[in-house]
Amino acid sequence: MHHSDTIAAIATPLGQGGIGIIRISGPDAAAILQRLFRSSSASFAGFRPRFMHHGRIADASGELLDDVLAVHMPGPRTFTGEDVVEIHCHGGPAIVSAVLEAVFACGGRAADAGEFTKRAFLNGRMDLTQAEAVAEMIAAPVKSGVRLAQAKLDGMLGRRIAELRGRLELVRMKLCVAVDFPEEDIECLSPEEFLDDIASVREALAELLRNYERARCWREGVLVVLAGQVNAGKSSLMNGLLGRTRAIVTDIPGTTRDFLEEQLSFEGLPVRLVDTAGLRETGDIVEQEGVRISRDLASQADLVLLVVDARTGVGHAEEELVASVGADRVMVVLNKTDLVETIPVVPQGCAYVAVSAKKGEGLDTLVGMARAHVLSRREGGEPESGDLVPNLRQSRALRDAQDELEHLQQDIRLQLPYDILGVRLEAACAILSEITGETTPDDILNKIFESFCIGK
Amino acid sequence: MHHSDTIAAIATPLGQGGIGIIRISGPDAAAILQRLFRSSSASFAGFRPRFMHHGRIADASGELLDDVLAVHMPGPRTFTGEDVVEIHCHGGPAIVSAVLEAVFACGGRAADAGEFTKRAFLNGRMDLTQAEAVAEMIAAPVKSGVRLAQAKLDGMLGRRIAELRGRLELVRMKLCVAVDFPEEDIECLSPEEFLDDIASVREALAELLRNYERARCWREGVLVVLAGQVNAGKSSLMNGLLGRTRAIVTDIPGTTRDFLEEQLSFEGLPVRLVDTAGLRETGDIVEQEGVRISRDLASQADLVLLVVDARTGVGHAEEELVASVGADRVMVVLNKTDLVETIPVVPQGCAYVAVSAKKGEGLDTLVGMARAHVLSRREGGEPESGDLVPNLRQSRALRDAQDELEHLQQDIRLQLPYDILGVRLEAACAILSEITGETTPDDILNKIFESFCIGK
Repeated sequence: MHHSDTIAAIATPLGQGGIGIIRISGPDAAAILQRLFRSSSASFAGFRPRFMHHGRIADASGELLDDVLAVHMPGPRTFTGEDVVEIHCHGGPAIVSAVLEAVFACGGRAADAGEFTKRAFLNGRMDLTQAEAVAEMIAAPVKSGVRLAQAKLDGMLGRRIAELRGRLELVRMKLCVAVDFPEEDIECLSPEEFLDDIASVREALAELLRNYERARCWREGVLVVLAGQVNAGKSSLMNGLLGRTRAIVTDIPGTTRDFLEEQLSFEGLPVRLVDTAGLRETGDIVEQEGVRISRDLASQADLVLLVVDARTGVGHAEEELVASVGADRVMVVLNKTDLVETIPVVPQGCAYVAVSAKKGEGLDTLVGMARAHVLSRREGGEPESGDLVPNLRQSRALRDAQDELEHLQQDIRLQLPYDILGVRLEAACAILSEITGETTPDDILNKIFESFCIGK
Repeated sequence: MHHSDTIAAIATPLGQGGIGIIRISGPDAAAILQRLFRSSSASFAGFRPRFMHHGRIADASGELLDDVLAVHMPGPRTFTGEDVVEIHCHGGPAIVSAVLEAVFACGGRAADAGEFTKRAFLNGRMDLTQAEAVAEMIAAPVKSGVRLAQAKLDGMLGRRIAELRGRLELVRMKLCVAVDFPEEDIECLSPEEFLDDIASVREALAELLRNYERARCWREGVLVVLAGQVNAGKSSLMNGLLGRTRAIVTDIPGTTRDFLEEQLSFEGLPVRLVDTAGLRETGDIVEQEGVRISRDLASQADLVLLVVDARTGVGHAEEELVASVGADRVMVVLNKTDLVETIPVVPQGCAYVAVSAKKGEGLDTLVGMARAHVLSRREGGEPESGDLVPNLRQSRALRDAQDELEHLQQDIRLQLPYDILGVRLEAACAILSEITGETTPDDILNKIFESFCIGK
């Protein structure tokens, strides 16, 4: 795959920082840099590959823009497989924009979302699972997500899928021989051997799918809902947890919601923590709506933290909530325990923890207990380095491949003709090669790369 | 100046992007990189200076974190003047944090705000005006700010100040000779020559101060206030302008305000555009408060855009506003002109423009007129490349130096003894060397660098 145009974009996050990078990729990358760059070294004799040169960037009119470091990485051993140039300037929004404009004025084109990674994929620098892992690595909110992405970035998932497909292709070859030389079919491929081969691949696919399910909570986060009476101290608790746990920086644009949502990490486990309207019954229509939403959320939650004022204890509304959500998904947070002598009774079957949200007491215990509670219900141990965890698209394809193989097993048992079996086998192989990108249709590729941000 | 410890921080803006950089500076920078980095090249034989090596970062436990490019820039010809290492990983918040943690585990210390630039200054890589220009370059909201920062980053302001101080030092030397050899004083330094020398330096300082005043609106932005009746279409106009002009990305944390403020660029001129409460008199206390605030804002504004529904025209409240603000600071925006046949009369002396905010008609004209209107009142032509514009701290010091020189001129005319004149002259020189950082007190240095963000 050869691209004739040269793309450019800001490669660092938007905002203010010490360093901002403009990345250029394509046949004119080096020529564009040459036009804009003025070395600060008297002995400068052109760009040495992969060497960081110090100098200044001036735009086409000669106006100096910034002090920079610039590097030319000649293809094909670069991220995109093409000639790549990086200009490292000061990391402010106006200066990176000004340098990018200067690059455009010299013939660079604005890169589409994900276009650098797409070129890397199309130029054979990485398979599709690795390309997707680039986006997953960048979007990872906590370290567990980094682990999941790293194994895939490394190509481990791609290689595993390719290996499984190779095993199916081998069976397919035997099948072809059997079709061409029917009298020798028993030697080539006995039905038992055939079934065994398929079963072992199916089991390997199933293991990847189990990894997907187990890691979901680490990738997508768990939903923890704060419920309780209006004055039980939900807001104080939310603020206390926010101050204690690292808030996660995300790009997700704020949407108007009838509840307050924050993204936190409970010791590495990504958590969507939602503060809802109070529990009490009300005649006010707006508030009724709030109460309805808070019940809906509670019903979806991985865990409901039911905040109770330790001085008033558990009342009718709380009992009802526990009954509707199920005691095993509720943890009672007895708040304001610094103000009482004895602790009130909590509904049967509920875990509980005593805290003072205002004073910040008991919050570490709460975080640890809540984390363990959710993980035990989800059977989701923390991902380890090297775990192979497909993403949503990949897991759907794995499931399709499994279905194909299941039907194939039935067809073998029904002793259907080998050419019909061959069609099923071919279909399963095609699905697996869609995962790694060998045969992925353009519209799916476009959808994948469009979901990237510009500059990746 | 020698620092024995090694500092590290994320050098790119926070958020998601293609590339994130961890910067390390100090004596252990290379050793830390060596412990964490695993080259992807079989022929890797150590870090070549300023060469971007491809490989992986693994933490101290051996867990792979990310695919990276890493570069070692040996001191002293680096940004900080020390050994500098950059690790370029994927630009996600969790991965840059994980790599930074790994650097800390190998002995790096978290850099304080502005500490890289402070080391650059203390190690003589730049003077104080250049160090300040780093922060100004990063914070520049629009290209004009980049221009202002670039000339200073380049050292032009620092050299100009040093040159002026040199001229004063020369006068001081002559003065010393005159004090030591009083009988020869006439030859050394006549009062006329003395006064001339001081006057010429004063004029040069005054020019810098005029640049400061002229460029203020480009650096700090101008305040444009939307006023008008509740239904005149202020919100539509604000949205129309937001869609048309590039919104400025800033780091400034949102504060709770009783008005809506957006930062825009009117063809390169930074604008704080404020939408205020409606004009009408009201009995509601909350609304009264809003009206009061909107009048306060209007009184501070560089320009008030008085939005008027073209169907109803200008009424008593609008006339009153124009009277209180002054017609030369009001531009009447006749809105909804797509719905009328004739345009109503506007208050005398007010510029006006006809638009349809909903349809987006006339908004470019409005932006151009508003920009020209503000600039003609502020006498602030767009900064040109190479303009020397001091910042607030520098301009205060320049003013102090001028005051010192003015007193000196009076003292010369009063024929005060040369040693007293010498003290004044020394004071003026000291103030100028505080600007460039030769003699800047530690507390001022700390204040300057603390205002930087971490990673700069």
